[in-house]
Amino acid sequence: MNNSNKQKELLVTNDDGFQSKGIQALAQMLREFGNVTVVAPTTAQSGKSASITLDQPLMIEKIRTEPATKALGSLRVYTLSGTPVDCAKMGINGFINEGHMPDILVSGINHGSNASAASIYSGTLGAAIEGTLYDVPSVGLSICTHDENPDLSAVLHYSRLIIRRVLEDGLRRTVYLNVNFPAIPLEQIRGIRMARQGMGRWIKEFDHRVTRRGKHYFWMVGEFEDQEAVGAPDADHHLVDSGYISIVPHSIDTTAYDEVERLHDLWDLDNNMENS
Amino acid sequence: MNNSNKQKELLVTNDDGFQSKGIQALAQMLREFGNVTVVAPTTAQSGKSASITLDQPLMIEKIRTEPATKALGSLRVYTLSGTPVDCAKMGINGFINEGHMPDILVSGINHGSNASAASIYSGTLGAAIEGTLYDVPSVGLSICTHDENPDLSAVLHYSRLIIRRVLEDGLRRTVYLNVNFPAIPLEQIRGIRMARQGMGRWIKEFDHRVTRRGKHYFWMVGEFEDQEAVGAPDADHHLVDSGYISIVPHSIDTTAYDEVERLHDLWDLDNNMENS
Repeated sequence: MNNSNKQKELLVTNDDGFQSKGIQALAQMLREFGNVTVVAPTTAQSGKSASITLDQPLMIEKIRTEPATKALGSLRVYTLSGTPVDCAKMGINGFINEGHMPDILVSGINHGSNASAASIYSGTLGAAIEGTLYDVPSVGLSICTHDENPDLSAVLHYSRLIIRRVLEDGLRRTVYLNVNFPAIPLEQIRGIRMARQGMGRWIKEFDHRVTRRGKHYFWMVGEFEDQEAVGAPDADHHLVDSGYISIVPHSIDTTAYDEVERLHDLWDLDNNMENS
Repeated sequence: MNNSNKQKELLVTNDDGFQSKGIQALAQMLREFGNVTVVAPTTAQSGKSASITLDQPLMIEKIRTEPATKALGSLRVYTLSGTPVDCAKMGINGFINEGHMPDILVSGINHGSNASAASIYSGTLGAAIEGTLYDVPSVGLSICTHDENPDLSAVLHYSRLIIRRVLEDGLRRTVYLNVNFPAIPLEQIRGIRMARQGMGRWIKEFDHRVTRRGKHYFWMVGEFEDQEAVGAPDADHHLVDSGYISIVPHSIDTTAYDEVERLHDLWDLDNNMENS
């Protein structure tokens, strides 16, 4: 463990639940930087976006601890019966850290892409949004396969570089990082690229069924519809498809500032729209 | 009903569930513009953000219909056992509209503020995000009280003006509107203002309890911590507190574009961070 990093406190969560391979590999790697606290959902929480649990109690359980070694920080693993945002809140605001802010929040390694429109529904990024709200530099990491046992060599190698820079440089207030990795071995990675959130959406989303009693119900399915031009060079999902690691800086302030003035004038708000 | 609006199709949802006063008053008012289809959650879905239901089937039920009259469009009310985003998807992509896109999606009237950081967790706005993803102009409406039976006179008066303008002018692609109303009668409203998402967050969020068997659990509570300077004139929650209606244009593209280039240079991505 690098001396200058000895005191770092790292908070780790995800949306696949504490038992997934991605979060376990991540937590171990991060011990190179300092003391790691995992607060992860008890059960899978994919598609939970930034949702919070208001209508039921949150049960917490301490799963295991490992002491610090010469080379590695300590590890504490908790599970929480809530969403990724609940987990982030518990790690930042809850009783676990007794008022000490973590130096970084890392969410992942998610099994499945969070590029393009997936970023909207992502519980992995919900947790990163929450960390950012509390001024904790926050990073979401995802590998673009739903394989439960993927080759994480590239993710671990490049995440290490990214985490080191975020710990050293911080991130701008309101900004978090959404990093997506192609599911290919380290030696096939073509590079790392800064990117923008690619445009796309799901179509044909509902598998329609009818019960024997005539009730209609649906399972959510869907096909991804790419809305980017072929070869758009800076859309995150295109980059990942081409063998690059994409890093999108997202903001938790989602105000469309250029629309504030335009709509003010267009709608004559000085007269409270009464003349419109 | 205005002739030019006769063919308008309006999709309505919310996060409080189909039985709330807010959505019922909204649906009736919107019939002035055309045919209204309500697809609302069966049960309350507050705090669900943009979450989707992947792990269980979605049950749909048709609750009631009212035919069009000389003055008003028709009304169809469905409930769906899912989140606000599920409802938006069902109204846009599902079997209800048989491939016809609605002219507008209106989510609300939410009972409770969705200004400032509440916008992050809001199911009301989750639905508006979803509409925007499908290029349906989308508006979230919220009255800043949890009263189940609030005075909606101001909300209905000004929502009518806002909806008319959105139907006429559309909204820029990727942009939806988050409108918050103070819980005061129409005659006390000081005006309508374009605003930005105010900065704030919740603190002291967990009510910690212990079961008789020694298990730790928590209820989510919390106090709002305002992070804006006193009197910040354009923060949405300040405006609402001062008796104004706030309209924030939010974007579903949350890329922090100014950070893309800065981090590219800072982190020497041309060399894939290997020298850092």
